[in-house]
Amino acid sequence: MKILTTLFWTIFLSFNLNAETKTKLYSADFLEQVATLRDAALSNQMAYELTESLTTEVGARLAGSPGDAKAVAWGKARFEALGFDQVTLEPVTFDRWTRGHESAEVIAPYPHQLAITALGRTHPTPKDGLTGEIVHFATLADLEAADPELVKGKITFISNRMERHKDGSGYGKAVGARGTAAQVTAAKGGIAAIIRSIGTDDNRTPHTGAAKYDKAIPSVPAGAISNPDADLLVNMLKRQQPVTITMTLTSHWDGKYTSHNVIGDMLGTDQKDQYIVIGCHLDSWDLGTGAIDDASGCGLTMAAAKLIKEHIGPLKKTIRVVLWANEEYGLSGATAYHEAHKDNLANHILGGESDFGAGRIYGFGTRVSEQALPIIDAISTLLKPLGIEYQNNKSSSGADLIPLRKAGMAVFSLKQDGTQYFDYHHTANDTLDKIDRDELAQNLAAWIVVTAMAANTDQDFGFGLVEKQ
Amino acid sequence: MKILTTLFWTIFLSFNLNAETKTKLYSADFLEQVATLRDAALSNQMAYELTESLTTEVGARLAGSPGDAKAVAWGKARFEALGFDQVTLEPVTFDRWTRGHESAEVIAPYPHQLAITALGRTHPTPKDGLTGEIVHFATLADLEAADPELVKGKITFISNRMERHKDGSGYGKAVGARGTAAQVTAAKGGIAAIIRSIGTDDNRTPHTGAAKYDKAIPSVPAGAISNPDADLLVNMLKRQQPVTITMTLTSHWDGKYTSHNVIGDMLGTDQKDQYIVIGCHLDSWDLGTGAIDDASGCGLTMAAAKLIKEHIGPLKKTIRVVLWANEEYGLSGATAYHEAHKDNLANHILGGESDFGAGRIYGFGTRVSEQALPIIDAISTLLKPLGIEYQNNKSSSGADLIPLRKAGMAVFSLKQDGTQYFDYHHTANDTLDKIDRDELAQNLAAWIVVTAMAANTDQDFGFGLVEKQ
Repeated sequence: MKILTTLFWTIFLSFNLNAETKTKLYSADFLEQVATLRDAALSNQMAYELTESLTTEVGARLAGSPGDAKAVAWGKARFEALGFDQVTLEPVTFDRWTRGHESAEVIAPYPHQLAITALGRTHPTPKDGLTGEIVHFATLADLEAADPELVKGKITFISNRMERHKDGSGYGKAVGARGTAAQVTAAKGGIAAIIRSIGTDDNRTPHTGAAKYDKAIPSVPAGAISNPDADLLVNMLKRQQPVTITMTLTSHWDGKYTSHNVIGDMLGTDQKDQYIVIGCHLDSWDLGTGAIDDASGCGLTMAAAKLIKEHIGPLKKTIRVVLWANEEYGLSGATAYHEAHKDNLANHILGGESDFGAGRIYGFGTRVSEQALPIIDAISTLLKPLGIEYQNNKSSSGADLIPLRKAGMAVFSLKQDGTQYFDYHHTANDTLDKIDRDELAQNLAAWIVVTAMAANTDQDFGFGLVEKQ
Repeated sequence: MKILTTLFWTIFLSFNLNAETKTKLYSADFLEQVATLRDAALSNQMAYELTESLTTEVGARLAGSPGDAKAVAWGKARFEALGFDQVTLEPVTFDRWTRGHESAEVIAPYPHQLAITALGRTHPTPKDGLTGEIVHFATLADLEAADPELVKGKITFISNRMERHKDGSGYGKAVGARGTAAQVTAAKGGIAAIIRSIGTDDNRTPHTGAAKYDKAIPSVPAGAISNPDADLLVNMLKRQQPVTITMTLTSHWDGKYTSHNVIGDMLGTDQKDQYIVIGCHLDSWDLGTGAIDDASGCGLTMAAAKLIKEHIGPLKKTIRVVLWANEEYGLSGATAYHEAHKDNLANHILGGESDFGAGRIYGFGTRVSEQALPIIDAISTLLKPLGIEYQNNKSSSGADLIPLRKAGMAVFSLKQDGTQYFDYHHTANDTLDKIDRDELAQNLAAWIVVTAMAANTDQDFGFGLVEKQ
């Protein structure tokens, strides 16, 4: 079977394994146990209760804020209460970025308050704000192509509108403006940058998110205004008079801070030092309570490991749930973990992160060695009753797994319906009410299937063999 | 026909008038002109452009604020530019209420920022806020029935949830909490009141709106928190520990202010002093740009009068478009108009106000004399192609017409689909993007039909004969 290409495997996977092969990979008893727990999970409330607990009892938890420390304490206490075999805090140190006062208003020709939020990692304005005329670009590319004379001394405004798609693919196309508007503006002599929020909603709740930051590259203060405010500015600008705004964003860098990756292990039986790494990021942006980004990911992966242990028992390999620190503006936890475990990276057998809300899962993707594809097929068979179809072997999984994946770890992805995700992502609207209990329970069921089956095989998934990005 | 009861008329109206009767009421030529303009209006952008202009060039226009004066100037200038025959500003003086700083946070057991807004006409907190324990009631009735000992020294919280209905009927059931929570709380020794927003959305955009106010009745500071914040508080309270919040609402009464009803007349031919009164309220709450409440009502009634004059010509009676002052926290314009015109109230033949957003119109209601019902039937016939059905003769029309209606003026109502209206009503989210151009144009077409036909008959609609409320 090794001579088959990956492409061939991808297409014919579900047809070329018969029941006998699957039985060789897993006992019928075990497959029955997994299927039973999967079905029971559809009415299990543990993932929701953990999500409610984190969003209610901790709430906003921007990396480096008081909420960060509370979240770490919450994670440790919950792992212990759930009976994880081993709970570890691993330090994660990073430069702390702190949000300050934020406001903006059009002062001429038509005074209006604007709903604005600072982009993460951007420079502050002067304490009393700055004032300038708006120069408008439809896209980041237009700003990049602009004559610096047009931009000099002005506040740039990029009004590109994010598209709504089930797979969230509109994000990648739009988010460049958030990443580099401040740097491009600075390079052309502009004094500040504002962008239309990278989001699909029509609410007065602007979307924050990290801008690119490099001490060596000049930048300017930058904020996102809500989508209705962006529409308003565009309508003003159509009226052919100079539009002047004042904006105050006092966010700033604020020294070093040490947070922690919070790690809960359900230890394996005969392969204790082989890890199936699942999890979520524990930090959130500070505008909402970080429910879909990413408390739900924490709730469902913690519950998956707990329910597997409780209802099936310890499996061959260790299930490691990592609540990653400072994903949002640093990937700091991911980087620190990679550094701390650099001597045993190959023990990290397969990884997945839930970090795209709590919408119903419709797709399963992997990045594993060809030799592991029969296992993936067996997993896919048990995912199908949940309405989940196998997609391909080119998955990239979550952001916190990038360092491990680049080092060679195999990964998987359970793809959620993200049609509504970017209505709320990185806004004050990211709150518990956006989560549907039934959809979250379907997520839980899927994570149980993948995690339990990956942890209960003698095979690995091909560390160092998978295609690297 | 006079011996028929109103009920009988209501049911059989559309069956008992033949073409001959209708021809007697209106010439075939005129009916053809109205139908032609109605159909052309479906692709006419004038209502939208006026709505865009008011929300963009003026924006928020709380009665007594700088936006109020700008809105009055806007209304006068637009009436003149549209070629209204007569434009009049009538003074409206009221006690001015001003919003101040507003913030609230849970300080124990789980610190959270809350999205709060002051209810209109409520008292301020001390400048540095007040702090108290929450006492929770599911409904206003529960608060009313509560032992004062439970409330004394505390901040009351009413969490009743507004229902979503096409006709907006959930509002009446829920809004009592907004009206009297502050007074009931004060009477029981409470120190402040907060309510779940009277709205159907799940956004962090709290809904303001007027509370009842009487100098003689003790009251306390009162605010609405957004619906997700209300959910959060309920989840905290479930955890059985005292919940303490700090809130600062520095809104206050601020002397007398004189605004204006802005009146544009398209004069009639032989019955110049007989008025068909249509319009909207010109003021808005200050959190958004007052697009659906009520710029769209202004845009479409101004455009209706303009298009009738331009495409059909002056009609028998005068079409009077009134942009009412301070509807939101005073009905001040309505009261002042009634007082100013008390000697010629009977010249106000029929009135209607558009003040329920810009959703598609599905129903037509009236409150006219029995003698006028044949005219209503003729109007209904021309509304049917717009998908509008006649409802009954018990309509109450808009709030600004209450004084005239109580004095005996006949009224009509074009009922809009309000399924989404209370997602945005009285919030920062009341912005232009919430208006659908096609739905607004359908509104325009319907107002053209009713206004033109009411203005071009020798009959009246029974001043003083209609059932009074």
